[in-house]
Amino acid sequence: MSAPPEHSDDTRLQRLQEILASGAVREASRLLRSLAPAEIAHLLESLPAAQREIVWNLVDEERDGQILLLVTDEVRAQLIRHMDPQELLAATENLDLDDLADLVQQMPTAITAEVMDALDDQRRKRLEAVLTYPEDTAGGLMNTDTVTVRPEVTLDVVLRYLRRLGEAVPSSTDKLFVVNRDDGYLGVLRLSALVTRDPDDTVAEAMSLDMQPIHADLSESEVARRFEAHDMLSAPVVDADGQLLGRITVDDVVDVIREEGEHQFMGSAGLSEEEDMFAPVLTSTRRRALWLGINLATAFLASWVIGQFEDTLSQVVALAVLMPIVASMGGIAGSQTLTLAIRGIALGQLGPGNARALLLKELAVGTLNSLIWAAVVAVIAGIWFSSAEIAILIAVAITINLVFAAIAGSLLPLLLERLGIDPALAGSVLLTTVTDVVGFLAFLGLATLFLV
Amino acid sequence: MSAPPEHSDDTRLQRLQEILASGAVREASRLLRSLAPAEIAHLLESLPAAQREIVWNLVDEERDGQILLLVTDEVRAQLIRHMDPQELLAATENLDLDDLADLVQQMPTAITAEVMDALDDQRRKRLEAVLTYPEDTAGGLMNTDTVTVRPEVTLDVVLRYLRRLGEAVPSSTDKLFVVNRDDGYLGVLRLSALVTRDPDDTVAEAMSLDMQPIHADLSESEVARRFEAHDMLSAPVVDADGQLLGRITVDDVVDVIREEGEHQFMGSAGLSEEEDMFAPVLTSTRRRALWLGINLATAFLASWVIGQFEDTLSQVVALAVLMPIVASMGGIAGSQTLTLAIRGIALGQLGPGNARALLLKELAVGTLNSLIWAAVVAVIAGIWFSSAEIAILIAVAITINLVFAAIAGSLLPLLLERLGIDPALAGSVLLTTVTDVVGFLAFLGLATLFLV
Repeated sequence: MSAPPEHSDDTRLQRLQEILASGAVREASRLLRSLAPAEIAHLLESLPAAQREIVWNLVDEERDGQILLLVTDEVRAQLIRHMDPQELLAATENLDLDDLADLVQQMPTAITAEVMDALDDQRRKRLEAVLTYPEDTAGGLMNTDTVTVRPEVTLDVVLRYLRRLGEAVPSSTDKLFVVNRDDGYLGVLRLSALVTRDPDDTVAEAMSLDMQPIHADLSESEVARRFEAHDMLSAPVVDADGQLLGRITVDDVVDVIREEGEHQFMGSAGLSEEEDMFAPVLTSTRRRALWLGINLATAFLASWVIGQFEDTLSQVVALAVLMPIVASMGGIAGSQTLTLAIRGIALGQLGPGNARALLLKELAVGTLNSLIWAAVVAVIAGIWFSSAEIAILIAVAITINLVFAAIAGSLLPLLLERLGIDPALAGSVLLTTVTDVVGFLAFLGLATLFLV
Repeated sequence: MSAPPEHSDDTRLQRLQEILASGAVREASRLLRSLAPAEIAHLLESLPAAQREIVWNLVDEERDGQILLLVTDEVRAQLIRHMDPQELLAATENLDLDDLADLVQQMPTAITAEVMDALDDQRRKRLEAVLTYPEDTAGGLMNTDTVTVRPEVTLDVVLRYLRRLGEAVPSSTDKLFVVNRDDGYLGVLRLSALVTRDPDDTVAEAMSLDMQPIHADLSESEVARRFEAHDMLSAPVVDADGQLLGRITVDDVVDVIREEGEHQFMGSAGLSEEEDMFAPVLTSTRRRALWLGINLATAFLASWVIGQFEDTLSQVVALAVLMPIVASMGGIAGSQTLTLAIRGIALGQLGPGNARALLLKELAVGTLNSLIWAAVVAVIAGIWFSSAEIAILIAVAITINLVFAAIAGSLLPLLLERLGIDPALAGSVLLTTVTDVVGFLAFLGLATLFLV
């Protein structure tokens, strides 16, 4: 019961690597057996590919399924690739249906068919039901392990029913679902109500009606927001007719929220939230190459703009020295506005209803900041190159670029969203294209008009 | 029970704004009363400051406390500033202790004293206990509303005890905590076990020992990772002697995870995860100004490097046209590596144990990509300026910069972490400083040596 040391994960990782290096396979197996599936998943993600393979082979087969579910998609695909059909089949045993659904979707088709055949009729039907919904909807997140009760029975009857079910009641159950004869959703009976109310009360008296069921086709991010807004532990999922299909539990929602955060962060660098830190070099190179290529195209566009002013540059070389400052200030200011807007859209807090208010506020902030920093840059540049003209020129160019940055940062993500393009992925590239082009154009263009 | 339309939040926001614009205050109040506290919090965050004030005054006073807890720190501070002491006091009534602790920490000291005085002895003592732990630790997250039982009693006795407690059992209870005579933590009794096991079983027989208690001084991000790893709904918090202090529920953990994701994303643009989209213009300007100032300093550093090569630039103006490409490619490649490393550190998956493996992999990826893109850029630049020398020059410079970008992207965040500096905040500025300086230095330096 002592507190784990600060860097417990890293220490564990180092110990495992030392054991592997010394070839003490049996000791490594013992260490692995003492860890929870999630801890092993975490270790696997932290290991370079070669060691990952070795460790994966040391894991007890009956834990394969649980661990496969916990690693990111990319790592999972890599691990599955090296498993033979029998191992894969074994890994799918004893899994919850929502987990099984996630897993079979990534397996070779031949294996999927075998898995389906191995299931009993009821489980197969339920799996097929879950598989009909896209992975990123409530239907794809849901599990069908609900315990349902009728409104007219007493709590005493419910308690006796649950004792008969025994181990069949999932340990994560926090509430039962109240349904009518046709499986129509009526409300929930919280276990906390079941154990505190009089056993002679009926389910109808003890149940809560405050829980809105979730439609199977609701998007997973909307599901996450509902869980957050209402502090739910689990929620019922219904079809269009209000029939209970299953339930979503908060542990799956936690994964959605973690992935949403990572999507924004990784997306702004052109990476996927599933990106494996130790993906094979060639895989990483190919993916990164695409992103570098897109950015190169925008860099050449900026260069082309500069190229239009070759004459001016050859006459006043100070312009070449200072021009990155104009572009960089616009890029930094714009990306702050862009980041704020992307988060607002992701949280459902920014839309056509308040876009104008954001634009006006960001224009005010951008203008004020451009005045402050244009003055600072003007003084430094003016002294550096002993030129009042250059001082005025760079001040005006920075002001223009920061105003454009505020406009692009506010409106670009909303425009991309409307076009169905992910602003978290495309926003930053497009924004810096705008601020580079406007920055160079304003600075060099004004110089050409007034300086040479 | 019909599915909400796609843009339900935005529609609601627009309707509210229309109602406010038309001055139909009573209708606005009615709309607000139909919303859950979390929905009102969401609306408040989406509203520009002036309208936010109006809506806040329309909210029923007894819901103020709940809503204050759900908005971000910044919005909360703004709302609190306009409340009189009596309203503030009323808002703290009927709150859970962990929530109350969060709230009083942001209130004026005079109000805090009044709130403390208004509490009964037991509640005040508990609040003081929670307040002794920093907000970002398990102790700061925990609530003291635990229901405890002894191991030797039977489940039947537990059920009768719970029925006597009745409404005093929090509806979010999913497990009871088993303690000895001295409140020492022994294990948990899940409600799902309580309702499925034989009532004559003792707590000792039905309880689970698999739940490791969380120490009060564990960091909140470590708490979040444990909840994720073990799919927990709630967990016991103990002091150094193993005495039960309270419990953490998953809804608070969900907030931590959401904030962690936003911290990385917002941090890379120099923003706080608490940043209010509609913060007052002057507040935003001041904060952004700081970030722009830091970036300006690094931009001047890059300019100074360019300035060292004025002679070269005045002789070959093509260098000025092409130099942003060298810097930009390095920045893009480096930020991909940096992003991967920052996420790895945040998830506890990157540390001294595997830093070398990441560096080697990123060096390999960077080198391969630099060869591909150096060739492409060389061909385009060579044709554009009809110069084989420039083609070779830019290819070499890009290769050098991408190798440095891989090194800086891998090692910089680990170095910052070791120095106690937040890599999510400082990483991107420092990285682009490296790639700008190395890019300009390599390109213009080599040109000076071999071209002019």
